[in-house]
Amino acid sequence: MVFSFLALSLSAQEVQPADPRYTSDGQLVRPENYREWIFLSAGLGMTYGTAKPEAEQRFDNVFVTREAHKVFLKTGTWPDRTMFILELRASGSHASINKGGHYQEGVVAIEVHVKDESRLPNKWAFFTFKDGEPSAKPLPATSSCQTCHEAHGAVDETFVQFYPTLAPIARSKGTFREEPAK
Amino acid sequence: MVFSFLALSLSAQEVQPADPRYTSDGQLVRPENYREWIFLSAGLGMTYGTAKPEAEQRFDNVFVTREAHKVFLKTGTWPDRTMFILELRASGSHASINKGGHYQEGVVAIEVHVKDESRLPNKWAFFTFKDGEPSAKPLPATSSCQTCHEAHGAVDETFVQFYPTLAPIARSKGTFREEPAK
Repeated sequence: MVFSFLALSLSAQEVQPADPRYTSDGQLVRPENYREWIFLSAGLGMTYGTAKPEAEQRFDNVFVTREAHKVFLKTGTWPDRTMFILELRASGSHASINKGGHYQEGVVAIEVHVKDESRLPNKWAFFTFKDGEPSAKPLPATSSCQTCHEAHGAVDETFVQFYPTLAPIARSKGTFREEPAK
Repeated sequence: MVFSFLALSLSAQEVQPADPRYTSDGQLVRPENYREWIFLSAGLGMTYGTAKPEAEQRFDNVFVTREAHKVFLKTGTWPDRTMFILELRASGSHASINKGGHYQEGVVAIEVHVKDESRLPNKWAFFTFKDGEPSAKPLPATSSCQTCHEAHGAVDETFVQFYPTLAPIARSKGTFREEPAK
């Protein structure tokens, strides 16, 4: 039984489409193959509030579905059913031959940002997976993720201002929303 | 003329196979589509020598060809004609809503690590592209890149010890070379 479950699980992973999937009670199914999507950027210790001490800083890796990325390259915008992953990882230093700086270690959490116009009241929603849960409910529309992305996303609620390969494309297509000077 | 050059260039990029290609005088042709390969990890300010001041620290992103990655997942080793990219990017802070930590900015250089058993005397070689050159000669076998990777690479001259998704696979396949305790 264990073997057939594994075989089923691997086979489902191989063919899993990069489209949001939901449980019957409306939770998002955790995307398993996101490391095969398009990598957009990484940060270390990025915060929108008070900076954390160096030892507590985490890496973030951002991935987007390959089909959505293809559409963005042509249009500068995200199609319906786009999915982003923010993968948070611990940072390490001074192992092996490394003598300075920081490298990535284990996953702390993943957050998924989904555009699904027919299902989500605000078109986009966030879902957080902290402990390997197979599915998650959307964060409320009043969450800080949602309100901040709506207020500051350079393109359609997404932080394209932090994705160095995409920002020039959005600017050239006229879809980049510049922030007012402070 | 400009338009036809652009068209040719885009079309070549779309169909470019993820295999090393060389000029007639043995230089590696710069891989253009590596951001569509598999992302392995990112670091900030990583150094094998003296740590640099924070303002001079750079991000590194590592990508590997998709076909080679598939083989690694099954075998824990790299097939012939594997290519890695180390992409170095400047780091920024405090733009837009960011109040701490570091995000990625423009490309500083890319380095390519190629396994090509029939062509390269040491099976693997490094190629550095600093200013958008279309092709580059291999670094000599005595370069610090080459000698350090030979001495410290966990799997076949590659730094799998710094790739958190791959190290457990290599360990489970018995291909991971542990470093002697210091």
